[in-house]
Amino acid sequence: MSWLSVARDGGGGSHQLSWALQAAMEAEAAATTDCSGHGRVYLDSVAGEDGQPGCECNGCFHGPDCSRRTLNCTADAESADQMFMEPYWMRHAAESAVVVSGWHRLSYFATDGEYQSVELERHIRRLHRAVGNAVADDKHIVFGTGSMKLINALVHALSPDGSSSASPGMVVATAPYYASYRTQTKMFDGREYKWEGTTEAWAANASSSHPSNSSTFIEFVTSPNNPDFLLRKPVLGGWFIADHAYYWPHFTPIPSAADEDVMLFSASKLSGHAGSRFGWALVRDDKVALRAKEYIEESSLGESRDTQLRMLSIIKVILANLHGKEDMFAFAHEEMSTRWTRFNAVVSGSRRISVKKIPPQFCTYFNKTREPTPAFAWVKCERKQDHDCYDALLKANIISWSGVDGEASARYTRVSLVKALDDFDVLLERLTDLVNDEKQSAPTSSIRLPSDQVIQQ
Amino acid sequence: MSWLSVARDGGGGSHQLSWALQAAMEAEAAATTDCSGHGRVYLDSVAGEDGQPGCECNGCFHGPDCSRRTLNCTADAESADQMFMEPYWMRHAAESAVVVSGWHRLSYFATDGEYQSVELERHIRRLHRAVGNAVADDKHIVFGTGSMKLINALVHALSPDGSSSASPGMVVATAPYYASYRTQTKMFDGREYKWEGTTEAWAANASSSHPSNSSTFIEFVTSPNNPDFLLRKPVLGGWFIADHAYYWPHFTPIPSAADEDVMLFSASKLSGHAGSRFGWALVRDDKVALRAKEYIEESSLGESRDTQLRMLSIIKVILANLHGKEDMFAFAHEEMSTRWTRFNAVVSGSRRISVKKIPPQFCTYFNKTREPTPAFAWVKCERKQDHDCYDALLKANIISWSGVDGEASARYTRVSLVKALDDFDVLLERLTDLVNDEKQSAPTSSIRLPSDQVIQQ
Repeated sequence: MSWLSVARDGGGGSHQLSWALQAAMEAEAAATTDCSGHGRVYLDSVAGEDGQPGCECNGCFHGPDCSRRTLNCTADAESADQMFMEPYWMRHAAESAVVVSGWHRLSYFATDGEYQSVELERHIRRLHRAVGNAVADDKHIVFGTGSMKLINALVHALSPDGSSSASPGMVVATAPYYASYRTQTKMFDGREYKWEGTTEAWAANASSSHPSNSSTFIEFVTSPNNPDFLLRKPVLGGWFIADHAYYWPHFTPIPSAADEDVMLFSASKLSGHAGSRFGWALVRDDKVALRAKEYIEESSLGESRDTQLRMLSIIKVILANLHGKEDMFAFAHEEMSTRWTRFNAVVSGSRRISVKKIPPQFCTYFNKTREPTPAFAWVKCERKQDHDCYDALLKANIISWSGVDGEASARYTRVSLVKALDDFDVLLERLTDLVNDEKQSAPTSSIRLPSDQVIQQ
Repeated sequence: MSWLSVARDGGGGSHQLSWALQAAMEAEAAATTDCSGHGRVYLDSVAGEDGQPGCECNGCFHGPDCSRRTLNCTADAESADQMFMEPYWMRHAAESAVVVSGWHRLSYFATDGEYQSVELERHIRRLHRAVGNAVADDKHIVFGTGSMKLINALVHALSPDGSSSASPGMVVATAPYYASYRTQTKMFDGREYKWEGTTEAWAANASSSHPSNSSTFIEFVTSPNNPDFLLRKPVLGGWFIADHAYYWPHFTPIPSAADEDVMLFSASKLSGHAGSRFGWALVRDDKVALRAKEYIEESSLGESRDTQLRMLSIIKVILANLHGKEDMFAFAHEEMSTRWTRFNAVVSGSRRISVKKIPPQFCTYFNKTREPTPAFAWVKCERKQDHDCYDALLKANIISWSGVDGEASARYTRVSLVKALDDFDVLLERLTDLVNDEKQSAPTSSIRLPSDQVIQQ
């Protein structure tokens, strides 16, 4: 069965089209290619000998039509690649498609000489208002190539400028943190800021938490936190960047609209469009927003207008279906909820690994108290000998994301729940194997365990 | 007349379409909006009260349908916004349009886990081979958000890494240079490199041109040069980045295929798609290419896959028409040639301003010796009192780009010839006014001139 059949909003029919016909036919032809339900063809997929783009298969499937299952396949649960959203966008194919004409926005300048689409800005504000996850109306919006690009743009904007005599900005985060805050800050290695490690050391010394020597903290506060998905508040005084990439109702209860001075969001986590590389910052202060925008101008003269057009059409679809029976957040929440339940059902049978629990909260979007539906499981290895949990899972043929890069204890590792259903299914298979192995070797373990404890204590 | 009528490749007709129909119809509907031939509607143009996107007018035109000419309009010849390519892409509407489906490349990873489209890389190599302007086959390709983003990516990749004890890379360029080399390098202000001014000072001191203290020059060599369009070679020893953004046959004779170690290209100058923010570097050395790719990964996890898809379709159109009667380079060359002739015809009547001449050369693409067709006129103000040429043109209601930012003499200023025909026409009007004023005030001038000379000598 071709997955085109899921595109049931099409309407279709016989219409008089001119120049857009050829592109429309090419797109539909590519989409009808049969990839056995375990892959899809993109228009720019690598062309085979027949000149036609070929299938790109999900993990653990291969062959020209993705019909062959890879035996004993390792589950790859490393990345936060939200392919679980793909069925939603296939179902809303007609509303979400967009034709980019050959002459679309050739210019450096969008409306009114800006690098940013006025309509997209408006729709982002509308979205935050309608979802109620952030107060956007009194803030500037700064677009970036994913929220990744905005990490350094905001660090730059919050640091003293080169001409000032102030000490470099002190960039910090609370462990376990998203490692790119550190690695990106260190890579750019600007003279106006410096990575200064985790907040713990600074918070411990009360006097140093407000450094007197004219330095300012620039604290990354990720809420929900990547990797452990807890809601977070700043620990130190000074500037902070509230990374709300996951603060959307499919992933977390929304107790209230976030209203910090500097907030980060990303298309990848909102709708799954990681490949578009589109993120935005909401910034209250005029000067900080201006410096961030100047950074974007100086580094790349703004971000792709093609992507801006596409994100506009995506956000329009989300808005049009909000709270309706095709609500994107409801779809995504239900899918994540099912996965979280299935995942926990397997893990609850294990004494080797456990999963960090997250408390239920009232969600203003769904108007009820609800369980968490995190994008990741923050897995702890309980056995003494599994001091490197990433490694322990790898031995069970599960690739995770070690928390060590984000200065977490090696006892923990992040397991992604958001990839394609095929990937998730393989993950559960490998986890079930792990739990079954455990049961079979249970007598041995129970002998070993007390002995280990004696040795270690 | 709507400009849709220029889209004559459409073919059109009645076909059975499914999910792509709605987007195709929306795109065609927007395109049929009448903007009087002095503007166009984009799908994401700001919507009016009727909810429909409105016209975006060319310079010096306004009103809901762009039909009203702004009286005494100032000619804006500042930016290198290649809107002169728009008619070509409208004419090739059917071939160049692309449908981006709602599920197009959600993932962070394109084919084989890469951030870059394999097909686009292949087509870029094919293009360089077919045009003969650069040897790409033995080099790595690194994509960036415009070549702008690659300026710092390459400076980073060519600088000693943070763990090395080597002195910072010395970033230099020969005046007059493209000011962003300096402004971007200074903005990022990394500890591993430093802006060290123009090459002149270093070249003058022969011993310092190879700094002994383990420092390395990173020299920007722009060829053809922005702003004066001369072909250039490196001046100092050390690494250099050959910025070949304008090294395409519509702008310059191509004497031979460029084959430097590190080269920069940009979609904005190739095809006019500045708004897509897409550029690429060709890099011979494995380690340098890897560091540049790591920079792109760390800063933005690659560049927009939407734009990569679109650029693939654009480059396919260019390749399909190469050397045929709809050759993009022939179209663009003819347009630029006409403009250059018209521009010089007006300026030749002036004694106040003159234009830098560029010698003809043999062009391997057009297989003949040909005159230059530069994107800019590098204008010199000849009168003693016009020591600030930018200012002198501004008084004549022409906005140009002062060379001072690129450490050129203020006697020169850059005038862009590549904007929409409406802009170019207004530029010629203002220039004609300037020349006519000159003639009317000629008797006064001819008295003043010798007197000025006496005073000054």
